[in-house]
Amino acid sequence: MPNIPSLEELRRMSISELEQVAVILREFIPNATKEKKGHLESSLSVCELTVALHHVLKAPEDVLIWDVGHQAYVHKVLTDRADKFSTNRKHGGLSGFPSRSESPYDAFGTGHSSTSISAVTGMAIQDYKLGRSNQHVAVIGDGALTGGMAFEALNYLGTTGLDVLIILNDNQKAIDPNVGALHEGQTYEMFFQSMNIRYMGSVNGHQMSDLVQQLRYALSASGPRVLHVETIAEFLPSEPNYKSELPFQDVFGQAIEELLERDDRLTVVSPAMLSGAGLSQVAAKYPQRVLDVGIAEQNAATLSAGIAAAGGVPILHLYSTFAQRAYDQIIHDIALQNLHVIICLDRAGLVGNDGPTHHGAFDLAFLRPIPNLVISAPRNGIELRNVLYTATQHNGPFVIRYPRDTEARFDAQGKFDDVEFGSAEVLREGKKLYLMSTGTMSRRAMDVANTLEKDGYTVGVIHHTFIKPIDKRALSAASRATHWVALEDSSVGGLGSALSEWLHENRVDEVRLSQVHLPDRFVEHGSVDELHLGCGMDTESVVNRCRELLHS
Amino acid sequence: MPNIPSLEELRRMSISELEQVAVILREFIPNATKEKKGHLESSLSVCELTVALHHVLKAPEDVLIWDVGHQAYVHKVLTDRADKFSTNRKHGGLSGFPSRSESPYDAFGTGHSSTSISAVTGMAIQDYKLGRSNQHVAVIGDGALTGGMAFEALNYLGTTGLDVLIILNDNQKAIDPNVGALHEGQTYEMFFQSMNIRYMGSVNGHQMSDLVQQLRYALSASGPRVLHVETIAEFLPSEPNYKSELPFQDVFGQAIEELLERDDRLTVVSPAMLSGAGLSQVAAKYPQRVLDVGIAEQNAATLSAGIAAAGGVPILHLYSTFAQRAYDQIIHDIALQNLHVIICLDRAGLVGNDGPTHHGAFDLAFLRPIPNLVISAPRNGIELRNVLYTATQHNGPFVIRYPRDTEARFDAQGKFDDVEFGSAEVLREGKKLYLMSTGTMSRRAMDVANTLEKDGYTVGVIHHTFIKPIDKRALSAASRATHWVALEDSSVGGLGSALSEWLHENRVDEVRLSQVHLPDRFVEHGSVDELHLGCGMDTESVVNRCRELLHS
Repeated sequence: MPNIPSLEELRRMSISELEQVAVILREFIPNATKEKKGHLESSLSVCELTVALHHVLKAPEDVLIWDVGHQAYVHKVLTDRADKFSTNRKHGGLSGFPSRSESPYDAFGTGHSSTSISAVTGMAIQDYKLGRSNQHVAVIGDGALTGGMAFEALNYLGTTGLDVLIILNDNQKAIDPNVGALHEGQTYEMFFQSMNIRYMGSVNGHQMSDLVQQLRYALSASGPRVLHVETIAEFLPSEPNYKSELPFQDVFGQAIEELLERDDRLTVVSPAMLSGAGLSQVAAKYPQRVLDVGIAEQNAATLSAGIAAAGGVPILHLYSTFAQRAYDQIIHDIALQNLHVIICLDRAGLVGNDGPTHHGAFDLAFLRPIPNLVISAPRNGIELRNVLYTATQHNGPFVIRYPRDTEARFDAQGKFDDVEFGSAEVLREGKKLYLMSTGTMSRRAMDVANTLEKDGYTVGVIHHTFIKPIDKRALSAASRATHWVALEDSSVGGLGSALSEWLHENRVDEVRLSQVHLPDRFVEHGSVDELHLGCGMDTESVVNRCRELLHS
Repeated sequence: MPNIPSLEELRRMSISELEQVAVILREFIPNATKEKKGHLESSLSVCELTVALHHVLKAPEDVLIWDVGHQAYVHKVLTDRADKFSTNRKHGGLSGFPSRSESPYDAFGTGHSSTSISAVTGMAIQDYKLGRSNQHVAVIGDGALTGGMAFEALNYLGTTGLDVLIILNDNQKAIDPNVGALHEGQTYEMFFQSMNIRYMGSVNGHQMSDLVQQLRYALSASGPRVLHVETIAEFLPSEPNYKSELPFQDVFGQAIEELLERDDRLTVVSPAMLSGAGLSQVAAKYPQRVLDVGIAEQNAATLSAGIAAAGGVPILHLYSTFAQRAYDQIIHDIALQNLHVIICLDRAGLVGNDGPTHHGAFDLAFLRPIPNLVISAPRNGIELRNVLYTATQHNGPFVIRYPRDTEARFDAQGKFDDVEFGSAEVLREGKKLYLMSTGTMSRRAMDVANTLEKDGYTVGVIHHTFIKPIDKRALSAASRATHWVALEDSSVGGLGSALSEWLHENRVDEVRLSQVHLPDRFVEHGSVDELHLGCGMDTESVVNRCRELLHS
């Protein structure tokens, strides 16, 4: 454990001492955690900036907000969390993002991009109202600046005259290389000035004395202002097993490549998540047909609707949690016009160590009421391929939900089968009890059924490839059972609710329904297995629940 | 019926003939429809622009998209719909917005703001891919430009080199006066150029010869470009009964004024809907505490979260349909951090003549799965006041849903009562059947119960002020009935689904549940009564449904 200074010590340090602290942190942090290369790189690129900020600010009275929050590792270590930093992103340990419940130094929780300017403006409004004279600073990367809400916030901030300092961390990088016309040719000055935000800079983000001097100057100025800091993105070596952690995504990328090859109508649209999606290879092969629009989910969705309105078939790839940013566009631009857009929701369900900001918990609930939408959740790589193909043949909006999952390896190639539209699959015939599952939870349902079989119970499993439309014939056939257990890696409002409504609507009083889904609380971070255990969604918990029902 | 030229005739006309057409349209349109002052004003302000556009373009091959779509009345009349224009916004008649299903000249449906640049870019991508050489034009107002997705789209468009023409209709006006630093001092040129969009103009939007010349020039240029057109907002006389159409909103405005007076912690935040919200008067009285952030729902939500994070109590006012634009921010910035933000969802349920883009159909379904949220729906003005007051005393996110409704007149003043948290109200005790209603549908439930009473049935009515948490004691007490009928002006996924789940979870097999809610299709425009009738949600339909149940 190196000697990390307290904030009070840091504030009194000389430039050369600050430089020394930065050197120590650059060594300490990657040794203390291997957790998340992208976060580590982003955080290290603001190492000197973070040291300089805590040197000139007086946190937590002064407000400091880190956009996206993946830049905040240095901030966390400097603000009383060095000794816990080895627990970073582990179950029960530090969050990978700033969190108000974790530390008073985390002024505002940030996990999704582009929120910091709105948040810091809100805090400045309230502090100004109460006559406080504390500083208000938000650090936002050039990638996060492409999100529309950052623009909304700047455009409003420029009218307020509030003393807010925005620090533009310009490392020319989102998770993938940054997209957008704005950064080309360093046009930031015009951009900010057009919204009445005073522009200062640029300053070298690794030169401590310049940084401290410019920060002090920027803080002493008044009104809304931006300091443009140029940093160099770190590149840490990739973990050797990185790719093998993403097999569902690999299946997806390979299937897309094959589909693009055979179907000229298809165009892929992604808001800055090509590599996470498994699409890097196909993007290199078809640069005109795989479009990265930057961190801009709203634009991605409606641009896809535009492609469909002109007769193309777009494949819109969104992380489930980020689809929340495109919700209105999915309703208003895609579904209402019944356009043929294939919406692939990646990272659906619990995502693990990224935690509550990133779990894809709500998608089934928020999508199910939307008319015209088809909603599917394949249970493995083969079915993902086949449902994708089926979606290309369906003329209307079609959602495909799949998790970040390590167990979906599948190496089939070159062959696609049509999936019968709206059909469920009876994986096991049952008697008294049927497990009703969807997505990869169908594998868990099979584990549960196999365990119970050893006890002598014949438990059925019906895999619902489609949540909407639900397979009514399959439900009718299973209505001779006395118990159904719905099983889904999603909040209330999805498959289980659909089954509950169907039973009441069809007056099937004989079937008693139990629901297993995510709880009505934000689920913390940890491995997916640890989290499922905590939610009573692991095999043993579900087995016990079924046993109780079978004995009742 | 005046002589409206065909598009082919229009294209061959001289400037003076075009001017004459504009004169005719300016007289015809307000005579043909009184429907929606704001739309009429916006449309008339682009009268010459619309004539000029259809003179130089060849629609529908050339793509023309109207942002928000409320500017499109002249466009509709010019594109084969003059004879139907008197049916504008009436049930079965023309939509108040462009609609792909209504006309091939409506290239893309637009009702919500700021979508047009994404849509036109998508269409240009597809047309370019197919080698088409048609033009691509989007007309966007300076108000709509404040929406973040317009920025996302511009920033991407600037990287593409596509031949897209954006027309900035600069009338310095959203529905309320336009907000945002961008328009101050005519800084548009810097703004667009910072994103590699060529800026042209400005041109007087009412001077036909200049308009035609500049449009031709702009269309002949290549790459992404903007033509800045300055128009003068029309001001039509207000309908004398305009205010009396908004009594729920009046109650809201008055309650907010009283609450602000007595509770210094409160600040109101609105994305450009102050007058529609009934907040004009209180905004004039407390300009520092009633903030209009422009058409920017995302910023409105997270800025509110920032105010709460600094200890204030923000009242975030959103139209239900526009809350879809702030969905991620409600989850990620408000609910996850459990911040005390009071979210007032206005125009919940069917809104009438604005139609499917504006119905507040989905809010109960998309909000119910979110942890930490309280969700309420008062049944009248008194309860709206009391729930608002209760929300100010609750430390956490609190949603209040209420409709645009003409029948909620209430003139109480100066008094607020606390509502028991999570409590339902038994409006009538019943025997065999209970109507379970929420919001203003509780009045309909009472009508149904009164009608059935004449037939000799004692039907209970339980008004669910709270959808989340649901009042379990009230449900238990009503479990001696054999039938529940859930009644809500919302899609599947709301109150009825909560009841369905509760019955299964609690093994109440004796109660048979029927759900009355909005159907699984996008509901068209018309009066709310006409639409409820079409959805089987009118009193008679519900009475008949109850009769069947009581006889079964």
